[in-house]
Amino acid sequence: MAVYTDINEVDLKAFLAQYETGDLLSFKGIAEGVENSNFLLHTTKGALILTLYEKRVEKTDLPFFLGLMHHLADRGLNCPLPLPRRDGALLGELSGRPAALISFLEGMWLRKPEANHCGAVGRALAEMHLKAEGFALARPNALSVPGWQALWAKAKDRADEVQPGLSEEISGELELLARSWPESLPAGVIHADLFPDNVFFIGDALSGLIDFYFACNDFLAYDLAISLNAWCFEKDGSYNLTKGKAMIEGYVAVRPLSDEELAALPLLARGAALRFFLTRLYDWLTTPAGALVVKKDPLEYLRKLRFHAKAQSAADYGLFV
Amino acid sequence: MAVYTDINEVDLKAFLAQYETGDLLSFKGIAEGVENSNFLLHTTKGALILTLYEKRVEKTDLPFFLGLMHHLADRGLNCPLPLPRRDGALLGELSGRPAALISFLEGMWLRKPEANHCGAVGRALAEMHLKAEGFALARPNALSVPGWQALWAKAKDRADEVQPGLSEEISGELELLARSWPESLPAGVIHADLFPDNVFFIGDALSGLIDFYFACNDFLAYDLAISLNAWCFEKDGSYNLTKGKAMIEGYVAVRPLSDEELAALPLLARGAALRFFLTRLYDWLTTPAGALVVKKDPLEYLRKLRFHAKAQSAADYGLFV
Repeated sequence: MAVYTDINEVDLKAFLAQYETGDLLSFKGIAEGVENSNFLLHTTKGALILTLYEKRVEKTDLPFFLGLMHHLADRGLNCPLPLPRRDGALLGELSGRPAALISFLEGMWLRKPEANHCGAVGRALAEMHLKAEGFALARPNALSVPGWQALWAKAKDRADEVQPGLSEEISGELELLARSWPESLPAGVIHADLFPDNVFFIGDALSGLIDFYFACNDFLAYDLAISLNAWCFEKDGSYNLTKGKAMIEGYVAVRPLSDEELAALPLLARGAALRFFLTRLYDWLTTPAGALVVKKDPLEYLRKLRFHAKAQSAADYGLFV
Repeated sequence: MAVYTDINEVDLKAFLAQYETGDLLSFKGIAEGVENSNFLLHTTKGALILTLYEKRVEKTDLPFFLGLMHHLADRGLNCPLPLPRRDGALLGELSGRPAALISFLEGMWLRKPEANHCGAVGRALAEMHLKAEGFALARPNALSVPGWQALWAKAKDRADEVQPGLSEEISGELELLARSWPESLPAGVIHADLFPDNVFFIGDALSGLIDFYFACNDFLAYDLAISLNAWCFEKDGSYNLTKGKAMIEGYVAVRPLSDEELAALPLLARGAALRFFLTRLYDWLTTPAGALVVKKDPLEYLRKLRFHAKAQSAADYGLFV
């Protein structure tokens, strides 16, 4: 949860004057998102989200993120739509931060998703992949193999503080993944962070995807591997085959996976687990004790990593079972 | 800012089934209130606030707070209205916490209030005092002289850590205030915490008062003294006579102050400054470094206390100037 930057009514009024919105009725800082400050605005024309981009987001990446949301929403994907200012720009400035005004998407993220929800997420992810085709901008994935190696170089020496033996185990994983990571698979724009808090439902119906601030170009099946990690493990660390099967079948119903993609699934899932393990480990080691952010346990992803290391094929994830 | 307790969609659905609300469309934890967890809900019938009462609020006080809001809203004060459940109760339970569903009040609190806003606050405070008449319940002010003494007993030994000499100065203040605190002045239900974040405006028009969780029975003019402290000092520590004059004149336009109340104003303001100094000092000394709460500087209220100690009459606050 986070509101890093407060805003005042004088600056907000001047900011909103650049847009065609209704009159402002209220704004509340909301406890969602860990990278940016978000406010929920009520206006006489409806609800909006105001996002202030904090320093963890590269300003040069914002045209990619905002342009992608615009591209996807234009093609009918349910996702937040950045509103243009009167001068056409999607990005403004408020309280010294780059800031955007974005349509408010009704729906809530599920703390307790079931298999049917995982199926809906698989379908929506595949739809996003198809609808992203033709988007003019590109953004390399800074958190693929070279990014993992850079993070590990900064965290390795202190990894055994978190759990003895971690340094050796992760070094081995990273070597194996660097050696065997696929060179070519169907690629495109991926969401790269489709965790439960980024998918909204109204009742049991998926109402939209949010938070495209990790989106980038990479293998499409890697995005599915990230989502399997994020949705299909239980709190006790066990993989839920029913949820995994639902998610993969939901995905392939919209965008079939090639034999190469299916064969690569265990390796992609292993890499995805390592990616979240590494960023969590780095944050764990570097976030000061007094920070307003709840630190996420890196060891959750170590357990997932070990599951993937033992998996043989897509069947271990629920497909064709 | 605070969301101390998260809620899940399963428990929330069961909670809402006890009320006559529309269908739930979304809920967001909001970064307002330091005592409780607050969520902004959108339903097909409009917006609502869901409050989970955390342990700093005494559960036995909740009927007073919720009943007061109901009483005031019934009499036409713009304030949040607790919704009754189907069984008539104003209070339920969610995620192991006492919880209430409350009407959403549009408006925003001013980070940069001007004198005209202070005038509106004075009028609204007096209206609240008049409309609270006849409310059946009572709640003694736990933060009057005996409460200050109890807080000071717990903080005194460490006060000089915050600023050398503080222990002696505050002990003297407390003795003087205990000796000279008024024995009888017009009394009733006071808000007791009418800071800028508890007053909403739409444009320049006051749209309502919120957060009655410090409300109690005490001298009415003491409530005005609290608000003068909260609204009429500038960031540099100076008292703004124009704002003070506007607030007092706004108040007396609705509820005239007696000669005794006017004469007591410097002393009441001094006590109010000491009250906020002491709770801030106590929080400063006891809040752990890693807590999700921003600690407020007690010395801001030491400076205000010194201003009041020098004041001679209501004229020093802007009245009859």
